[in-house]
Amino acid sequence: MTGQGLFLTFEGIDGSGKSTQARRLAEVLIKLGHEVVLTREPGGSPGAEEIRRLVLEGAPDRWSAETEILLFTAARRDHMERTILPALNAGKIVICDRFADSTRMYQGLSRGDLRDLVDQLHKLMIGREPDITLLIDMDPETGLSRAKGRQGTEERFEDFGPELQRKMRAGFLNLAREFPDRFHVVDGNRDADAVARDVADLVQRELRSMA
Amino acid sequence: MTGQGLFLTFEGIDGSGKSTQARRLAEVLIKLGHEVVLTREPGGSPGAEEIRRLVLEGAPDRWSAETEILLFTAARRDHMERTILPALNAGKIVICDRFADSTRMYQGLSRGDLRDLVDQLHKLMIGREPDITLLIDMDPETGLSRAKGRQGTEERFEDFGPELQRKMRAGFLNLAREFPDRFHVVDGNRDADAVARDVADLVQRELRSMA
Repeated sequence: MTGQGLFLTFEGIDGSGKSTQARRLAEVLIKLGHEVVLTREPGGSPGAEEIRRLVLEGAPDRWSAETEILLFTAARRDHMERTILPALNAGKIVICDRFADSTRMYQGLSRGDLRDLVDQLHKLMIGREPDITLLIDMDPETGLSRAKGRQGTEERFEDFGPELQRKMRAGFLNLAREFPDRFHVVDGNRDADAVARDVADLVQRELRSMA
Repeated sequence: MTGQGLFLTFEGIDGSGKSTQARRLAEVLIKLGHEVVLTREPGGSPGAEEIRRLVLEGAPDRWSAETEILLFTAARRDHMERTILPALNAGKIVICDRFADSTRMYQGLSRGDLRDLVDQLHKLMIGREPDITLLIDMDPETGLSRAKGRQGTEERFEDFGPELQRKMRAGFLNLAREFPDRFHVVDGNRDADAVARDVADLVQRELRSMA
């Protein structure tokens, strides 16, 4: 599974502003004349959205962690085949709000052995990693209060409080150290315009270095 | 994933009578005083049935072969966790109408490289193989006419005709040669009573040799 375009992902704790930043980067790149596909996980294709609903509906213990990882991998495979790879193969820039690093972080947090399972399934069924991953790093308490201020969110981890937010932040920063070639950590503790400028500068530098 | 009970599976082409034989064996073993769980795939647990519906509904090209294999593996994992392993751990005999060998055969038939993917996912996420697999071997033409005579079937391959039935039969016989320790080939081209007697004798011999 390879592509000719550029595959960008945004990661970060709840309330970090990653979805806003993904959208703003898409707007900047479109203004500059690039062809951009903005998508998100879980979901991102009609089939993946249906699998997502199957996972998120019902009682919390309805699926074991392992079955849930298989279902999310099926959703990601569909998202790759139907949305991400066709766009990359057409030379477009794909911006994805959350991707495999979110799965690595969440599952690694709940049980250490699950991280290994996530990685093996990713290697077998997905293969491709993002070219650039923008981690919007954010103070956990600020992120939590921002996330709680939103309405209609489907996030399932927000109710677990500041301790979980701290662990999630540490989990993402560990991933940034593990994959230094593609991870870029952006300070999200500033107003959205400043963060958006940093993100745009960083991506434009990468695009120039690729050209 | 291990268990103390006995894990029996039935395999065979459409119309081979495997579901009838699975039910009759369950009746015989219950009469002999064994605790028996009779189940089937795809499905076999509430979660697996929901995944099954998701796979089988909609257009035939709705899911790629790879996504479908992931969804069926998720269903099988749920079936193992919720139905098969609890029964085996309680010392029961589990009789399952179709299991991983059906997936190996069907996917290997459509594309050679998929068989390898099925095996890798099985090793990673399921692990356990049946103790005994009863392959009800049947003349493909007879099987096809029997299958067509049934109503309300959900089988998806029956419309593909005798050539596919021949390939499926050969695929199952190849699996029997590949796993000679657990596979037993039973001649299904006889009346159901004769087949049921052979199956019951064979399983009782195995139970005595285990005791």
